[in-house]
Amino acid sequence: MTQHDETPRGGDTAAPGRPRGLTRRRLLFGGAVAGVGAAAAIGADLAFGRPGQGAGQPPAASDPLTPPPAERLHGGDTVPFHGRHQAGIATEPQAHATFLGLTLHEQSDRAALGRLMRLLSDDAARLTQGVPALADSEPELGLLPARLTVTFGFGPRFVERAGGAAPAGVGPLPAFGIDRLEQAWSGGDLLIQVASDDAFTLAHATRMLLKDTRSFASLAWSQTGFRRARASEASGTTMRNLFGQVDGTVNLEPGTADFDRLVWRAGDAGDAWLADGTTLVLRRIAMNLDTWDQLDRGGREQSMGRFLANGAPLTGAEEHDEPDFEALTPIGFPVIPEFSHMARARPVHPDERLHRRAYNYDTAPTGGSVSNAGLLFASFQADVDAQFVPIQQRLDELDLLNEWTTPIGSAVFAIPPGCAPGGFIGETLLA
Amino acid sequence: MTQHDETPRGGDTAAPGRPRGLTRRRLLFGGAVAGVGAAAAIGADLAFGRPGQGAGQPPAASDPLTPPPAERLHGGDTVPFHGRHQAGIATEPQAHATFLGLTLHEQSDRAALGRLMRLLSDDAARLTQGVPALADSEPELGLLPARLTVTFGFGPRFVERAGGAAPAGVGPLPAFGIDRLEQAWSGGDLLIQVASDDAFTLAHATRMLLKDTRSFASLAWSQTGFRRARASEASGTTMRNLFGQVDGTVNLEPGTADFDRLVWRAGDAGDAWLADGTTLVLRRIAMNLDTWDQLDRGGREQSMGRFLANGAPLTGAEEHDEPDFEALTPIGFPVIPEFSHMARARPVHPDERLHRRAYNYDTAPTGGSVSNAGLLFASFQADVDAQFVPIQQRLDELDLLNEWTTPIGSAVFAIPPGCAPGGFIGETLLA
Repeated sequence: MTQHDETPRGGDTAAPGRPRGLTRRRLLFGGAVAGVGAAAAIGADLAFGRPGQGAGQPPAASDPLTPPPAERLHGGDTVPFHGRHQAGIATEPQAHATFLGLTLHEQSDRAALGRLMRLLSDDAARLTQGVPALADSEPELGLLPARLTVTFGFGPRFVERAGGAAPAGVGPLPAFGIDRLEQAWSGGDLLIQVASDDAFTLAHATRMLLKDTRSFASLAWSQTGFRRARASEASGTTMRNLFGQVDGTVNLEPGTADFDRLVWRAGDAGDAWLADGTTLVLRRIAMNLDTWDQLDRGGREQSMGRFLANGAPLTGAEEHDEPDFEALTPIGFPVIPEFSHMARARPVHPDERLHRRAYNYDTAPTGGSVSNAGLLFASFQADVDAQFVPIQQRLDELDLLNEWTTPIGSAVFAIPPGCAPGGFIGETLLA
Repeated sequence: MTQHDETPRGGDTAAPGRPRGLTRRRLLFGGAVAGVGAAAAIGADLAFGRPGQGAGQPPAASDPLTPPPAERLHGGDTVPFHGRHQAGIATEPQAHATFLGLTLHEQSDRAALGRLMRLLSDDAARLTQGVPALADSEPELGLLPARLTVTFGFGPRFVERAGGAAPAGVGPLPAFGIDRLEQAWSGGDLLIQVASDDAFTLAHATRMLLKDTRSFASLAWSQTGFRRARASEASGTTMRNLFGQVDGTVNLEPGTADFDRLVWRAGDAGDAWLADGTTLVLRRIAMNLDTWDQLDRGGREQSMGRFLANGAPLTGAEEHDEPDFEALTPIGFPVIPEFSHMARARPVHPDERLHRRAYNYDTAPTGGSVSNAGLLFASFQADVDAQFVPIQQRLDELDLLNEWTTPIGSAVFAIPPGCAPGGFIGETLLA
């Protein structure tokens, strides 16, 4: 995440130039900033060919019989449910998330949808504040929200049943040549995104919310993902995906004017009920780690256009350095290959930007593979057609990363605005 | 977990008597001790019928745009790999664990098993200390162990191939009437238990270790579970399962003489190679949350023999109070029903005790259910036949909880002792 301008970015003042590897000094310094300490420095030694103290002599191991020093407990932390916008969008991403896609029952008419959304909003308001759901069968499990957020989204059929017109772009995306979409991970009438720093909280909240939907809809799919644990590394560190890439450096940052303009829908955007809302594109992208492993480090960096060590562009030294797409190698090729993911994904128009809030997934491998993993790519943007589609079309045409990634699921939802206490999500459409 | 005698147990001095519900005072106080704060107190108000401030007015919500105050970062925390015993047994349970069961290839002979265990031990020693695996394809992903432990276990066929004799009890358990075992979760020649406070670390470490096994074995099953997040609640709090029950109050505590005697195998126990090792019983227990929900609170407490609010026995006030199995209700029935889980599970012989280290699992529901969840029951004990089997036989004969729980997977492994730097796990059998 790079949501906070005040996020320390290391302060490393190493001489400029291309970091072909991670220097020991940089990693030591970065590690100290991130509070990681000596173990990571040893890691760098071994990984990058310098002699270290050896794995057998950990410098700062914890004694399993001694309780760790007191830590600030975060289970009680809450994110407001009520407000102008729904939570779980500008919220700094929690460690765990589950995306639920539901199919409405045939008999769920407009009035039923109103009842459903009142019920869901009420329980979401409770659970996110550490209050058990109204009919919570295990009330003790609802007391530690750990920044739980619940975010609702509507697919085209939900909007139609509610008597509205789905906004442009909310519905199946254009067909992309790289797609190998499976019904099991695609479409859906109602989205519930549940996210928390505690996987246990997530499991309970998800079940309570699904119980609310039982008379109105059935579960079409459930996708669960993770990022680094709360306080595992410094807040504001851009996530890495399971390829090892720093993933999401270029991102609309909450609290900026660009975020407000490009993520939240304006009142005059046409569909008045969606003002202060947004849209979600959720893509399940399988990542073939087995074949990725066969590519050498240089090849990986070329395919991404960034260094693996710290995510810096191949023309820079630090993650957030501006890439120089004009720079040429001594023999005249672009330093950042034209077919690299970064070169293809960069905005052609300055408004082609997204707020990404992705999660990794890792499920049990089958059939001789040692992994079945990938990315739950989730992006929020005011206008799918103007912001998401052009980027995806360029990536579809050409992107070195396509060799190792396959979109296997795709869904788009309108994300209505938030509500005040006493109101409910979807009231601008259903009330 | 109840591993530390110095763990604060609340200090609540409420008058003795049966806590029929959670009093507001107790929850307020308990919340303060646990650092949970006001949100939990509101939870108690709503859950237990007192008027609260209402869910819409959270008292202490965090602003999503303001970074939280500095927290101690735990990603660099390590648990020693080398030692007399393997790690991941007496280690305070991490937030996430994956259990991998592997089937040896036909051609993996004794020499091959030696190579396999050297390779695995070397990479486990590295990864647990925050050092990338030897052939780590994503070295940056190996730098934050977050208390990563890797624990190896051998099934009967592994021991046989190694030229040893499997200890008594290591092999399929006696058939229990309640079992509905599925091959997909049962048996296995080699166990790898990987655990960390960070799900991302767990995913990467698991893949690196599975890559090591590729020439020697194939994956039979993979089971992933979770407990509460690191620092979500106070260290030493006994876990709850997804039924909402306080689960694991009676547990052998690391650091005690009983633990040393009843978990670690003595040198004169017969199989000398297993001295300082132990055994693992792993049972996948499906929990039918949908039918459990239909049972009222009193019925649930009767089936367990403990109060849901704080896990106290039905004859006590606090979790760790000694249950009084002789106490009778005014009309002459035992207060703790004879068929309750606690009454059936309690040791008949004082040595019938285990070290439990269970995890919850929750996978995507199918076919109209709103959950597909349960418990990865994991227990370590020196002697399966003397410690685990008699308890399980009593539970098999009669246990109210059997109505809602079904064992669907079962595996037993010999857990060899630890090793010194330069050695490898299994050397007492293979070297």
